[in-house]
Formats: sequence, C-alpha cells, structure tokens
Amino acid sequence: MIQTRGYAAQNAENPLGPFSFARRDVGAHDVLIEILYCGVCHSDLHQVRNEWGGSIYPMVPGHEIVGRVSKVGDQVTKFKEGDFAGVGCFVDSCRTCPSCQEGLEQYCEVHNVGTYNSYELDKKTPTYGGYSSQIVVDEKYTLKIAPDQDMSRVAPLLCAGITTYSPLRQWQVGKGHKLGVVGLGGLGHMGVKLGASMGAEVTVLSTSPNKEADARALGAHKFLVTRDEDQLKEYRNYFDFILDTVSAPHNLDMYLSLLRRDGTMILVGAPPEPAPVSGFSLISRRKRLVGSMIGGIPETQEMLDYCAQHNILSDVEVIPIAQINEAYERMLRSDVKYRFVIDMATL
Amino acid sequence: MIQTRGYAAQNAENPLGPFSFARRDVGAHDVLIEILYCGVCHSDLHQVRNEWGGSIYPMVPGHEIVGRVSKVGDQVTKFKEGDFAGVGCFVDSCRTCPSCQEGLEQYCEVHNVGTYNSYELDKKTPTYGGYSSQIVVDEKYTLKIAPDQDMSRVAPLLCAGITTYSPLRQWQVGKGHKLGVVGLGGLGHMGVKLGASMGAEVTVLSTSPNKEADARALGAHKFLVTRDEDQLKEYRNYFDFILDTVSAPHNLDMYLSLLRRDGTMILVGAPPEPAPVSGFSLISRRKRLVGSMIGGIPETQEMLDYCAQHNILSDVEVIPIAQINEAYERMLRSDVKYRFVIDMATL
Repeated sequence: MIQTRGYAAQNAENPLGPFSFARRDVGAHDVLIEILYCGVCHSDLHQVRNEWGGSIYPMVPGHEIVGRVSKVGDQVTKFKEGDFAGVGCFVDSCRTCPSCQEGLEQYCEVHNVGTYNSYELDKKTPTYGGYSSQIVVDEKYTLKIAPDQDMSRVAPLLCAGITTYSPLRQWQVGKGHKLGVVGLGGLGHMGVKLGASMGAEVTVLSTSPNKEADARALGAHKFLVTRDEDQLKEYRNYFDFILDTVSAPHNLDMYLSLLRRDGTMILVGAPPEPAPVSGFSLISRRKRLVGSMIGGIPETQEMLDYCAQHNILSDVEVIPIAQINEAYERMLRSDVKYRFVIDMATL
Repeated sequence: MIQTRGYAAQNAENPLGPFSFARRDVGAHDVLIEILYCGVCHSDLHQVRNEWGGSIYPMVPGHEIVGRVSKVGDQVTKFKEGDFAGVGCFVDSCRTCPSCQEGLEQYCEVHNVGTYNSYELDKKTPTYGGYSSQIVVDEKYTLKIAPDQDMSRVAPLLCAGITTYSPLRQWQVGKGHKLGVVGLGGLGHMGVKLGASMGAEVTVLSTSPNKEADARALGAHKFLVTRDEDQLKEYRNYFDFILDTVSAPHNLDMYLSLLRRDGTMILVGAPPEPAPVSGFSLISRRKRLVGSMIGGIPETQEMLDYCAQHNILSDVEVIPIAQINEAYERMLRSDVKYRFVIDMATL
C-alpha cells in the first residue's frame, strides 16, 4: 500500500483537516501520479456538507487533478515516468455496458466509480480524491496532459472544461450560432471561452451589470442583463443555444423565452429542487431543454488536446491547501475568478 | 359575401347554439369548401370556455375540417370543383418570415392566423372555424385529401394526426426504437397508430389497467401501468422516445426516469400550469424534454398522403351538431373513443 497525505472532511459539519490514508499498490494497468494541482469544484462543497445526501466519510474531495507520473504498471502503454497526467470525475466504470463501450463512461449503466465519495467496483473500497499527495488510477481512466502549459490552469479543465465542452460538441455549436451562457463561475467562464473558440457569438446572461467587463475579457461578444425588461425583450427568440451553468434555483421559462424556434437550452448545473417549466415554453416554438453531465474519457482527452492546441486555460486563483475552508466560504459568495486551485506542494 | 350557418359560443358560460355569419367571397387564390365533417378537439373546449384567456366571441370552433370544393378562384391551381379538401389549425400566416419560408407556418414569427378564435392578417377580421356549413380558404393553406376514404375518420388527422406525426418525423422515430405514448385520447391513439406504422415498438403508458385491450387493438405492442411500482422499475431507462399527449398536470420526472440515455420526451399536450422538472432527471443520462406544435402545410400534406397510403384513420364517434354540448361534457370525462366528429349534414 502507498501511504498518502491529504485533506479530508470527517463529517458534514466540521472543516476539512489533514488526513493520512493508504492508496493501493500500482497494479499492472495503473499509474501513480504525484499530484501537482487540484481544482476546487462547487460539487466538492455540496458533497463535503452532504447536501446531496449519502456522503461517505472520511471524504478526501477533488476531481480536477493534474500531476506527474512517478511509476507505471507492467502493462501500461499510454504513460511513462515523468509524463503529465490528469484525472477527472471518475476513475473506473463497468467497462462492458453500452455506455462504457461507446466511451460514455460517465453514464455507465452498472457502476461509475467517482474519483471520491464513491466506492471501487468491489462496492466496498472507498475512493479518495485529489486533495492529496498522490493517486493511483488505471491508465484507461487517466488523461494525457500536454507539457509546457500552466498546470494550475489546466486542472479545472478536468471537470469545468469537459462539462461545458461536451454539450457544445454534442449539439455541434459553432460558427453562425448565437450562444447564451448563464452564470459566470467555474463552468460559465469555460463555456464562454470554449463557445467563442468554436466560432459562436457568445452572450453572457447575468443578473448584474457589474460582470460585463469580465465577460468581455473572457471572450464574450455581448452581455445581457436579465433584470432589464427592455433588454430581455430585445433578446426574445434570439439564441440558438443557452448553456445554463447555474445550480441555484432560477426561472427556466424566462431563459426559454430567449431561445429561437428549435433552440436548445442545455442544463449542466442542476438546481437542488425541481424547477417549474411551462409546456407552452417548449411547444410554442419547438424548443428543447436538455441535460449533459461531464464527458467520457475519449471526449475528455479530445477536450484537453483541443485546449492545449488553442491555448485555452481556466482562470484560477491558486491557494495553499490550508486555505481550503476559507476558499469554500468565498466560493459560496462567488468571490473567485473563476476557480480555486490547490497547490499540492503546500501539503 | 357568402352566408354561412354554424354553431357558435356567444361567451364563455353558455352552451353553443346556431349562428349565422358571412364568409368572404372567393378570391383569386381561394377555394370554397362545403364542410362534410369537423373533428372536435379538446382545445375547442379550452377556447370556448376561455380557459387560455383572450377568447374572441362569437366563436365558431373547429379546426379538423374535411369537405368538398364547390368553387375555386381564378388563380387556383391545386384544386378543382368536386375535390376533397382539408383545413387544419391555421388558414394563413405572414408568408415571408423564415418559419413561413421553411414551410413551418405554425411557428410564423409575425402572425399565424388560427382557423378560429383568431384574426386575419388585417388583425381585425375574426376567423370562424369548421362547426359550419362552408369555409373559404387560400389554396396555399388548404390540404388535398385522397378520395375513397371514410372522410369522418380523416377529419381528426388535421390536428390530432399532424400533432403526433410531426414530432415522430422530426425525431426520426422508427424501426429499432422503443416509443412510449402517454395518454390514450384523440392525440394519443393517433400516436400509437403512427408510431407502430413507422416501425417503432409502441408501449402505452396509462394510469389504469383497463385500457390495455384498447391500446393493443390500436397497435400497441406493450402496456405499462404507471401506478404499478414493479412495472415502473422494469421500464426504467427503457424508452428511446416518450410522446406525452396529456394536458392535465402530471409528474414529468417520473416519465423522464423511463427514458434511456439520450432519450427524448416530446410534449404535445400542454398542461395549463408549469410542471416541476428536476435538473438531475435531464443531466444524469443526457435526456431531452422537447415540445412540438401541430405541423406546417408541407408536412401536413405529407402526413395526409402517408395516412391514405397506409390506411391510417382516426377512430371516431360521429355526432349530429345538436349534440356538441353533450359531447364536450363526455370529452371532459374521457368518454370517447377517440374523437368526436360532427356530421355537418345535420346542421
């Protein structure tokens, strides 16, 4: 077993603190990764505080992991010692169901093994995430990271990047399309960068006019203040796509009214409570409300390669791990541009 | 002007009764149709009773019209005297917006002229529907009906038929697909017939086990009682498509749980109140909730030709027009298999 240091939540109420635990030895198909950076996703906080129920403690959060390979198993072919590697939201899946066979392992119909707050395929070994010194992962679930990038800014691509990249590709968003992005946080700021890079006209939809300069700096072409009735009128039936990254309760019908005929609103941030949707909102102009969840391994690799090629990186604030609890509080106030990333050298 | 007899509602409270009014003279592009049959749609009742607001009285309902052409204008090319002709939910539209140009006149971005309870393009001449002896319509908005069919059973195709046909085509439902149909009324029974004819495996989803024999007689391959928890479990993640024809409030999340990954639930019956939808229902397996509204003129013609070719007709109960108020009451109790159709010879 490999002794590993990390930060863990022992329960839903107390702050995270130092925690030592054992990783499995490096198997024939495994890689051992010395973690350099781990992004801080809003879902870390949800799960640490058991807001979705069923949390497993002690919990070592973190699923936006970038590091360097320090050891590889006998049968490993994709990696060698010294390579940069990434791990996203899951570290295994059944490998045989139709979704796994199609490279959509995130939708595994048997058991998708979350990077943390989950169990291995044996359904009894808990998984521990990236707020830690190292991690052992099957190479099949490990991503290749191109060198010569700011690795702290690559880390959030493993969740925030793929969560927004996947539906934009799935719905073939590109040149000639008008894309609205709701929410300018970790997911939203990646949605703006990726949508613009794919050729779409990107508009940030925000409740507050204060974010306009930031939105434009990220690459947005337009900015719509959704509390301004006149602006809302102007944008009625305007968008081909709206990427909705907000997980707080909000008025879906209002956003649907901004879609044109055959337009698609994509939910990637799930509000905890069901939101009312009017049938007329969808029927009257044949609109679509759809969901999307992260991405499979092949598409995540494609996204990482695409971002490396197009120099697309997350905007981050690097923190020492001792500041993680404070970072959670600031995240709750949306006081971060746009992702906290833990520098694991501070562990 | 052409003196016309019909049945009208004078207000939201009183029963329909005889009403005489004038149709415009036959213009160069118009056809005059002697109405043989007119289907009774649930939306007739909603509008007669002003349940959607904004009703225009006196109101002559009816938008499932089949008749015989008795006169054609100078410039008419599609029809001649004696032809069978149909009129659906609208009789005109702006003709120049992108939706009209694409033959999706039902989504006209300027003004879609409803067959009744609407105004002509002049925005002041009220339109009167098919509960009447004759109607004058531009040939462009008139459908050709193949002869040698039971015209009373063709009439409901003009709304119930196209409303279900259009989304099945739009989403390319066919062989290899598992299609669920929710609601076995005027729309639902056409959804079953059309879905089966296109090669899909059709399952009727019903709250009551009593409808199974009827469902199978219409062509359904399977029957799912949605109040039976064991059956629901068996059908989790099962359907490629669910066609939801119910306009009463119902639990959308329950139906969404029956869709497989990338499955699509199509709303064609709009509940009056917004229905709660959980973001997780859509995100966790990349599902889609979409709407569809009737169909454009080209697709309505395609549907009529398809039905004539495949001998697909609505199951109807023909009534004399004097029974229309009683028919409304029975419709409210779902006491009809599956569409009332008025025999206009009884006027």
